Amino acid sequence: MRQVFQQELIEIQEGLVELAQLMVRAIENATEAFAGSDIVLAEKVIEHDPEVDRLAASLDERVTKVLALQQPVATDLRLMVSALRMSASLERMADLAQHIAQLARLRYPENAIPEPLRKTFTRMGKLDIQMAHKIVELLEEQNIDTIVEIRDLDDELDELHTKVFEKVLTAGLMEKPEHAVDATLASRYHERFGDHAVSISKQMHYFLAGQRLS
Amino acid sequence: MRQVFQQELIEIQEGLVELAQLMVRAIENATEAFAGSDIVLAEKVIEHDPEVDRLAASLDERVTKVLALQQPVATDLRLMVSALRMSASLERMADLAQHIAQLARLRYPENAIPEPLRKTFTRMGKLDIQMAHKIVELLEEQNIDTIVEIRDLDDELDELHTKVFEKVLTAGLMEKPEHAVDATLASRYHERFGDHAVSISKQMHYFLAGQRLS
Repeated sequence: MRQVFQQELIEIQEGLVELAQLMVRAIENATEAFAGSDIVLAEKVIEHDPEVDRLAASLDERVTKVLALQQPVATDLRLMVSALRMSASLERMADLAQHIAQLARLRYPENAIPEPLRKTFTRMGKLDIQMAHKIVELLEEQNIDTIVEIRDLDDELDELHTKVFEKVLTAGLMEKPEHAVDATLASRYHERFGDHAVSISKQMHYFLAGQRLS
Repeated sequence: MRQVFQQELIEIQEGLVELAQLMVRAIENATEAFAGSDIVLAEKVIEHDPEVDRLAASLDERVTKVLALQQPVATDLRLMVSALRMSASLERMADLAQHIAQLARLRYPENAIPEPLRKTFTRMGKLDIQMAHKIVELLEEQNIDTIVEIRDLDDELDELHTKVFEKVLTAGLMEKPEHAVDATLASRYHERFGDHAVSISKQMHYFLAGQRLS
């Protein structure tokens, strides 16, 4: 029985990694579509989102099945509860990437980012992508140091989020009202993306401080 | 054993109702603070948020304990998994109410809502509060009709969300750039609030179509 459970744990971990990889692809494509007004890439992100949702749902089903059949206790049980939370965060991160892609599509052929903010959003996108890769690394290698790196990236993201508002509110900097709306929404999506990465890393910290996934 | 479990189920349900009641208070006060630039009420919402977080965390602990000690299967297990999701949504709804209160505090003594949008936001606030009460009702009385009512309220909320953007983008309607930012963020908070209410009602639908909570 114990051996079966270990195998199930490994498969759940692999499922989380696979979900995280889809999320990485979503944020990479969304960021590029947003920066370059690439409608084809934006639509690709939007089209792929149901795939992410399906994978998250099937992962949740698997976790629930393990809870029913293996009836884990203590750390193993907490691991299952955490897997549910992590899958919800990964799915939400992919949703946020999709929202960024939707903004790019909405403004196409114009660029959704007003010129004075382009550099800031390029950096925000890079931070999101770095965080996304760190999440995959954390789920795969379970190295506690990765958690600190994710936190640091999120701190920089939060600073940029504040900066976006300052620029949006600088008189005369936004040429059109939609620039203010787009910048506000996009910045909020990036910030929430980072929050979910931190939330996943907190879930992982809980275990790594105690017991390892496999 | 079965009787102990039934008692635990009732207590978890009561915990969810209590959490939902805190969330109702948060959105009621946040909406009033936002509409009337009431800094005292805004700060009250912000101060009470940690209480919501604590209650959600203790509810999750209780659910995890039930999973470990009672090892429920089938519908009872799904109920436990759902309780975790519903508690996360209720906590997030209170967070969104807090964000609305923070916007009111940020702009105090000015009103965060630009005049041309005041009527729309008053309606959005009312819809949120109605949905919040319906969630309490749904958790308490478990009447499947409430789910349809929540969905209808959310549809109206989504329409208003689109309307806010139209108004924000109408040339000359927003006097200051912060009006565009505030209206965009506040509208997004209201929309997400409604999404979480719908998400809770979907979780409840899953059971009520099958088995009742108590």
